[in-house]
Amino acid sequence: MSTLTEMFTDPVRVVNVGLEEFALPLQGPGAEAVTLDWRPPVQGDEELGRKLARLVAHPAIEAANHEALERILAAQPLLVDVRPAREVLPVLADRVLLHAGPPIEWERMCGPMRAAVIGAAMLEEWADTPERAEALAASGEIGFAPCHSYDAVGPMAGIISASQPVLVVEDASTGARAYSNLNEGRGRCLRYGALGDDVMERLRWMGTRLGPSLQAAVRSMRDPINLKSVIAQALQMGDECHSRNNAASAVLGRQLAAPLARQAELGGIEALDFLSGNDYWFLNFSMAASKLATRAGHGVEHSTVVTAYARNGVEVGMQVSGEGDEWFIAPAPVIDGLYFPGYGPQDANPDIGDSAVAEVHGLGGFALAAAPAIVGFVGGTPADAIRISEEMATITVGRHRELQLPALNFVGSPLGIDIRAVADSGVEPTITTGISHREPGIGQIGAGITHLSMDCFIGALRAFPVPPEG
Amino acid sequence: MSTLTEMFTDPVRVVNVGLEEFALPLQGPGAEAVTLDWRPPVQGDEELGRKLARLVAHPAIEAANHEALERILAAQPLLVDVRPAREVLPVLADRVLLHAGPPIEWERMCGPMRAAVIGAAMLEEWADTPERAEALAASGEIGFAPCHSYDAVGPMAGIISASQPVLVVEDASTGARAYSNLNEGRGRCLRYGALGDDVMERLRWMGTRLGPSLQAAVRSMRDPINLKSVIAQALQMGDECHSRNNAASAVLGRQLAAPLARQAELGGIEALDFLSGNDYWFLNFSMAASKLATRAGHGVEHSTVVTAYARNGVEVGMQVSGEGDEWFIAPAPVIDGLYFPGYGPQDANPDIGDSAVAEVHGLGGFALAAAPAIVGFVGGTPADAIRISEEMATITVGRHRELQLPALNFVGSPLGIDIRAVADSGVEPTITTGISHREPGIGQIGAGITHLSMDCFIGALRAFPVPPEG
Repeated sequence: MSTLTEMFTDPVRVVNVGLEEFALPLQGPGAEAVTLDWRPPVQGDEELGRKLARLVAHPAIEAANHEALERILAAQPLLVDVRPAREVLPVLADRVLLHAGPPIEWERMCGPMRAAVIGAAMLEEWADTPERAEALAASGEIGFAPCHSYDAVGPMAGIISASQPVLVVEDASTGARAYSNLNEGRGRCLRYGALGDDVMERLRWMGTRLGPSLQAAVRSMRDPINLKSVIAQALQMGDECHSRNNAASAVLGRQLAAPLARQAELGGIEALDFLSGNDYWFLNFSMAASKLATRAGHGVEHSTVVTAYARNGVEVGMQVSGEGDEWFIAPAPVIDGLYFPGYGPQDANPDIGDSAVAEVHGLGGFALAAAPAIVGFVGGTPADAIRISEEMATITVGRHRELQLPALNFVGSPLGIDIRAVADSGVEPTITTGISHREPGIGQIGAGITHLSMDCFIGALRAFPVPPEG
Repeated sequence: MSTLTEMFTDPVRVVNVGLEEFALPLQGPGAEAVTLDWRPPVQGDEELGRKLARLVAHPAIEAANHEALERILAAQPLLVDVRPAREVLPVLADRVLLHAGPPIEWERMCGPMRAAVIGAAMLEEWADTPERAEALAASGEIGFAPCHSYDAVGPMAGIISASQPVLVVEDASTGARAYSNLNEGRGRCLRYGALGDDVMERLRWMGTRLGPSLQAAVRSMRDPINLKSVIAQALQMGDECHSRNNAASAVLGRQLAAPLARQAELGGIEALDFLSGNDYWFLNFSMAASKLATRAGHGVEHSTVVTAYARNGVEVGMQVSGEGDEWFIAPAPVIDGLYFPGYGPQDANPDIGDSAVAEVHGLGGFALAAAPAIVGFVGGTPADAIRISEEMATITVGRHRELQLPALNFVGSPLGIDIRAVADSGVEPTITTGISHREPGIGQIGAGITHLSMDCFIGALRAFPVPPEG
């Protein structure tokens, strides 16, 4: 499926395929080198190349991918409740914490995730100082499991503990549910690995006032809010619903305003004050809605569609619809980003968080054309944003219907990453993301662009069972 | 300043300048006619052409326009209060109504404006039936004056009466003030000439509950909301702040949510319910902010910058910075639009409302590139929206600084319509607008695009005093 247009004209023009350095000796008077961003399919592995050739256009895979896409498109994520996590995630009752990304134990966790574990242990009153919390974690007395294993998602460190309020999103048609914690806002946040009295006080307030008032507000609404409708509006309003959620936060906030105002005694007015300054408020709703939709597409035999991709700050992991619950693992990549003053790439933790569920759901980097203003936050130009959405459409099995990109004449956002297309084209799917400091206790230091790791795709392709012919 | 690129190639190719019909006889095999949207400068008036040539690049005019532009840019519109109209517009105490557009008396008013007069007379309890209200107006016992004469603006019919709550917007630097009434939402509204119990009940509720709770909320805020900041955000979120205000309404609503929630006894929670469903809520704020800014640029001797343009549904009127308070008048044009089911151009009232103050302030049609999603409402494509913003930049004296267009790499929106450039180029400034039914009592039937009338520009140019040379 790869195409390569070679251009030979006067003066001598050379198309350099592969590493940019190869082009250097050819440059000079009369010679112009054009470097294409091209790499050999399946990393030059001939046997895997032959396998890929058998999978491309395979009728059973095409049919399975169509089925997976339709299941994802059919999901209608309704905001039905807000509950303390322990009530909907019973695993948490037993001194367990959920974390972002594929499975990882304390010893291998990165700095910001360790900090978030320490904060959560203090929030749950398992320890009364950071030192004691750290010792407790190191002793093996805290259990860890991926959020994804329980249909939950958490941004950045993604630590969900028993007392945290979580969103409950339910599929109107199937009754399936997905969960996320509540967003702390910008600045110093536990999810970025920041620690301190300010961080802990806000988390306690979220448990005692924000959660209960939001629960009462959500339960009081005659019709539950359809988060897909909020996302559809937000894509017309400059959001891509991963790293930019300004519009969705305002649209959802407006729908919640009167219901929250009626819960003044539970904390509803404080909640409105909090929401008015939190442009990230919708991120966790976007993630829960995306988890609900992508899980609906999981488990279709023969489907090569990616249904999960998550990062724990050390490794990234991917799941594929037709390949069960196996995580295909690779080292977490670094992020090409814009840094806050005083910070740079040397301070950055590698890619972390469950928020790439947005890209798996055709948002974030896939919907970048909807969000020209995001380039001030992650870098690049509005033209880059449009180009990236167009490029992502070359590696997906289809497009959204309701979730549209105005700048591209309202075409649906590209949806359903196909491991065959990625492995064959070498186009790594784009993720927009925040950047956490690599040391525990500091927090966010920037935002930028990274990619789903090609190694995950190669691993998934290698393991993919070839369907029987005919 | 006009440029005309003529193209002559094989096969015979003819550039047709002017009326499209001229091209017809030339079309056929081997001949291709290209119709340019070009008209002779100043409508072919040679004497006026010579005058225009003296005004172009005149140093006194250039300096004056720079001054007018800087004054407009310097305005910082703060939302400082909400008051019953009679308290800030004393003219209303004496059985007077303000209306949109240049001056007009009852006998010449269009259907929707008459309907709005009837509704306002009933709201003020000058009459208890529509028939008695109409008789009262016809008897000459109601006085009429343009909103613009009192630094006020009202969308569509623009009828402001004594008991209506109005926004008070104040310039942080000069203390100058501008006013607008509150937005009724979509559907059946007095401003579109709809009448009925539903319309009247909402207007009464706005006076007794919405106005007082909003007043208390606005007064309770430690720092007044800077509406220019809201507009700047909204342009990054798909609004052009004339016909699309979805984002600005949500952003402003979010800032007002907690303050309104604290005024539950005055009606604050009902107000939040109302705001949650009103995507037009910000329009009147946008208009008041735009009036405040453009009036700051008015009265600069020798300036050819347009500082007011308003329509009463029969005539349109324009004011120019260096030409005092004279209205340059022309017949109100029709609108090229999309109609609600069951309606068409034959039902449409000509152009009406003070809302073109947005375009005079570099919003609306001038900021169209910010609002690709608006084309679903007014027609066209996202590429048209970008093209129109680019074209508007050819007839303005400058650009906004804070109010930027993401799709055009964050360039400032074009600002300050120059009557010289419009008369010379023939480019009529674009307005986005709603369409009212021409009969009284019905309301909105669509939305679309129209233009500032060339006749106003010709009139203003004719009357413009040529500054002394050197």
